[in-house]
Amino acid sequence: MRVEVMKNILGSNDAAAARNRRLWDEAGILALDFMGSPGSGKTSILEQVIKQLARRGRTVKVIEGDVASANDARRIEAAGAEAFQINTGGACHLHAGMVSRAMEQLGLEGVDVLLIENVGNLVCPTAFLLGAHMRFVVASVPEGDDKPEKYPVAFRDADAIILNKADLLPHLVFDAEKFWDLCDQLNAQAPKFSVSCTSGEGIDTLCEFIEERLAAL
Amino acid sequence: MRVEVMKNILGSNDAAAARNRRLWDEAGILALDFMGSPGSGKTSILEQVIKQLARRGRTVKVIEGDVASANDARRIEAAGAEAFQINTGGACHLHAGMVSRAMEQLGLEGVDVLLIENVGNLVCPTAFLLGAHMRFVVASVPEGDDKPEKYPVAFRDADAIILNKADLLPHLVFDAEKFWDLCDQLNAQAPKFSVSCTSGEGIDTLCEFIEERLAAL
Repeated sequence: MRVEVMKNILGSNDAAAARNRRLWDEAGILALDFMGSPGSGKTSILEQVIKQLARRGRTVKVIEGDVASANDARRIEAAGAEAFQINTGGACHLHAGMVSRAMEQLGLEGVDVLLIENVGNLVCPTAFLLGAHMRFVVASVPEGDDKPEKYPVAFRDADAIILNKADLLPHLVFDAEKFWDLCDQLNAQAPKFSVSCTSGEGIDTLCEFIEERLAAL
Repeated sequence: MRVEVMKNILGSNDAAAARNRRLWDEAGILALDFMGSPGSGKTSILEQVIKQLARRGRTVKVIEGDVASANDARRIEAAGAEAFQINTGGACHLHAGMVSRAMEQLGLEGVDVLLIENVGNLVCPTAFLLGAHMRFVVASVPEGDDKPEKYPVAFRDADAIILNKADLLPHLVFDAEKFWDLCDQLNAQAPKFSVSCTSGEGIDTLCEFIEERLAAL
């Protein structure tokens, strides 16, 4: 019985995700979904990406997913992009229908890139695709180098992997080679980025990659 | 329909949690449940607590909950306590029945303190009590000082709050006063601990507190 209900939820999510994707494709908008643990630095990465893409003349909007609070939407607007904050109440992930409704509020006229920040969680969002062209999984140095082993689905299913807070590598015990080896074992083909939102390291490369994906739409 | 299924799951979880608690009370075992984000340092805290309680002559066993891997159980055994690793497959939290079955495997003869490490997740475990005498929520400095605002249920429902990686306070942007104020607004009565598993700061105080709770059983 539980399985059937779950299937229905996932089935209706997949249909909504496909509608989102069609809408973005028709409008020539690149949609990117960011998932990662609480505090992995997803919002900080979005702030950096927004600023760089603005300098390149791109229009970016953001959908923020959180259990509670509008903290992240406030940070995003301070970084210069319009944001819509979804509060899920108790839910541990966004689903595609939430994103559809947020888009209606936000408006997508003239948008080049739509960034979606999922609820901070390395488990639940994996089962609910939003229709985005790519899903990034964000891990960060203080979380430890074994996260791919412990949360394999997030890393296996990601379209790209970001290791954030790379500026802390000299100061904390973190075996970067081990981390990337574990990522390669789960997901050899995913592009991989090491970034720091404090030093700015790697942000250029990440934004170049986003530009390439936008050009390839 | 979804609500009814969810109620049934929670109802059967609550019954299993009550059975767990009865068993622990009869055996004079203090059971503590630790929840927190991936990488917040739950396992590192358990390692420190195990070593200190062993020095005080206490017998500690550990139930480890992870989506995948036996990494944490290996770390716990290296720290000197017997551990049973639960792999949830895809599930984002432990439930009380998993803990019951783990106890049967682990055996509780002569145990003083049972430590349970939940799946790394600040959202889902909140809805599934395991029957433990106390639930600790663990946050860590690199995650940022706004976590209580963004994941309020975890902090509101916790019986005690631990801020880990306190040794990083001088090096990262983290307003400790703001963090504890947010905690107080959600949960004034919960005991609060600032610890570092690197410097050892605060571990004594935490272990004293656990000893007091054990004495009060």
